[in-house]
Amino acid sequence: MNDIFYMKRVLQLAKKAIGKTSPNPYVGAVIVKNGKMIAEGWHKKCGGDHAEIDAFNNAKSPVKGATLFVNLEPCFHVGRTPPCAEAIIKSGIKKVVIAMKDPNPLTNGKSIAKLKKAGIDVKVGILENEARILNGAFIKFMTLKMPLVVGKCAQTLDGKIATRTGDSKWITSESTRQFARKLRNEFDAILVGINTVLKDNPCLNAADKNKTIKKIVLDSSLKISLKAKLFKGCSPQNCFIATTRRASKQKIAQFEKKGIQVIVCPFCKGKIDLKWLFKELAKKQIMSILIEGGAKVLGNAIASGLVDKMHIYIAPKIVGDQKALSSIDGLNISHIGKAVLLKNIEMRFLGKDIFISADILKK
Amino acid sequence: MNDIFYMKRVLQLAKKAIGKTSPNPYVGAVIVKNGKMIAEGWHKKCGGDHAEIDAFNNAKSPVKGATLFVNLEPCFHVGRTPPCAEAIIKSGIKKVVIAMKDPNPLTNGKSIAKLKKAGIDVKVGILENEARILNGAFIKFMTLKMPLVVGKCAQTLDGKIATRTGDSKWITSESTRQFARKLRNEFDAILVGINTVLKDNPCLNAADKNKTIKKIVLDSSLKISLKAKLFKGCSPQNCFIATTRRASKQKIAQFEKKGIQVIVCPFCKGKIDLKWLFKELAKKQIMSILIEGGAKVLGNAIASGLVDKMHIYIAPKIVGDQKALSSIDGLNISHIGKAVLLKNIEMRFLGKDIFISADILKK
Repeated sequence: MNDIFYMKRVLQLAKKAIGKTSPNPYVGAVIVKNGKMIAEGWHKKCGGDHAEIDAFNNAKSPVKGATLFVNLEPCFHVGRTPPCAEAIIKSGIKKVVIAMKDPNPLTNGKSIAKLKKAGIDVKVGILENEARILNGAFIKFMTLKMPLVVGKCAQTLDGKIATRTGDSKWITSESTRQFARKLRNEFDAILVGINTVLKDNPCLNAADKNKTIKKIVLDSSLKISLKAKLFKGCSPQNCFIATTRRASKQKIAQFEKKGIQVIVCPFCKGKIDLKWLFKELAKKQIMSILIEGGAKVLGNAIASGLVDKMHIYIAPKIVGDQKALSSIDGLNISHIGKAVLLKNIEMRFLGKDIFISADILKK
Repeated sequence: MNDIFYMKRVLQLAKKAIGKTSPNPYVGAVIVKNGKMIAEGWHKKCGGDHAEIDAFNNAKSPVKGATLFVNLEPCFHVGRTPPCAEAIIKSGIKKVVIAMKDPNPLTNGKSIAKLKKAGIDVKVGILENEARILNGAFIKFMTLKMPLVVGKCAQTLDGKIATRTGDSKWITSESTRQFARKLRNEFDAILVGINTVLKDNPCLNAADKNKTIKKIVLDSSLKISLKAKLFKGCSPQNCFIATTRRASKQKIAQFEKKGIQVIVCPFCKGKIDLKWLFKELAKKQIMSILIEGGAKVLGNAIASGLVDKMHIYIAPKIVGDQKALSSIDGLNISHIGKAVLLKNIEMRFLGKDIFISADILKK
């Protein structure tokens, strides 16, 4: 019972850094001695103190003989900072309660073994499920070397993102759109297709001005203009144009000269090979991607099995037209039995709109 | 506070007869004396005792000096049963608490005046909103001589009711479909278009075998076969075929010979004039209609301003295809600002599916 109580606090602390630690995980730590919480800490940004060290630094009394609660197995390796496992042993901590093993192959159980060998009582698995959800992107990145991908759409109740004439402003309310912009803070990168850029010319900035968000445009023929709004308010090296050999080499050179990253991708079924691209992006330390449209980009990513989760914003409106634009396109499914299934559905009201978040069931 | 407590019970009692009293309203009654509930009653079916009389009959002690709670103003007129207002005066009831005035022009405040004149203390408006929602169909029927119309669809998260090949079995789960069949019990009639009949050949029966549900098919050219399943398990006079002068007179005669009701409707924009039809159906004492499809029938009814409410069943699936069939079609809206708006959204899980119920905002 007490373990769960303290681990909940650990997860709360870890969540304070959502969107700020990539490619590191979200980690919180709490130190408890004689039934009293004597320290709290969390990992604030990549390169900064790990949560355990932050908690040690914040301790109001000596930690010797205390219990440390942490949502991720302490690190074993020397990375940007010295290994936490050693620091814990040196500190005289008596017991360590851990939510989940570190999926990082450099640690992955080694610290647990080391702590135990040093005579420390180690307990693993408290609120493991919650911890795994919190660090879903980190886990996927570490185990599969691929980013966690969330598909976003804002649609009417009947699944439309625009009328037959293409009018799409606005489906959801201003406050819902603001909520969606805030959620961008949680991702390393936003991805859109070139048609979205040409039609809406979006800025794609995060709501938090201190957040460095990367922007990815799928643009197989390199149609984008250097004047596109998304290049503003961010440094060019955070902009990625995924193109193909269809792009003019001269235009590629123009973009690269500005510092914009152009990635020339292979084809898959006549389109940019998204799986290849996402692997490349993972190599560039992009751990999480929010796909913001359009319908075909989203459909292609889903069809390729690359989307983990959907964020669907639904306005209480009906467009009621077969020819109006559907929120997701290109799956080309002939039988209902082959439809993409979702699980872990969460839904709630955002003012008058509805927000549905769900995981895509992998086949 | 007490008034609300007893009126809640009154509404509970009234709801026991949902789907069973048409074209009468749902009415419950409670009699309270010296702080004790001495009787409960409700209107069970058209032609049966009104709720007040049922409560009088159930009273465990003399009602003289007691308070009567009832959700609808007692009737003033001699209808299928004698007027309740008079029975109340004769009973010696001291106080009457009413949720809402009777919208029936034959009563509409007259009983309230009569009770007051007889020296009875009358209070009106307790839980009026709840009472109006419960008797929404009766109110519309009485005031506008039109049925209350609910549009139903079962769709994927992206608004599809079938794949591009027309495959539609099944979108929602068996238990959700069973829930939807149970909701049919609450309506006087179910309406479908001829294409739904030709494609799915549905039975359109209510879940409750004792329920007499009327079936309406929109069939402008009278394509339906006498062998269609919907003619089975119900008497022919409860089947209505709405057609136009395009129908063969010979075929009309065949249906009429069987006792099936054929209504030859005028056109409106090349389609059956639904407003005219619904007025006709109201004259035949049809007070509530559930439209079960297809997409164009639903769209046409919505576009004609005839739909009051939507029941949308959403399966956690994605078809992801512009060419897959949209749940509602034919509204031909060019700008998002002209989309049909919904309010009073209620949503909940039905197993893994989602059920959204909402009122259409009339312009």
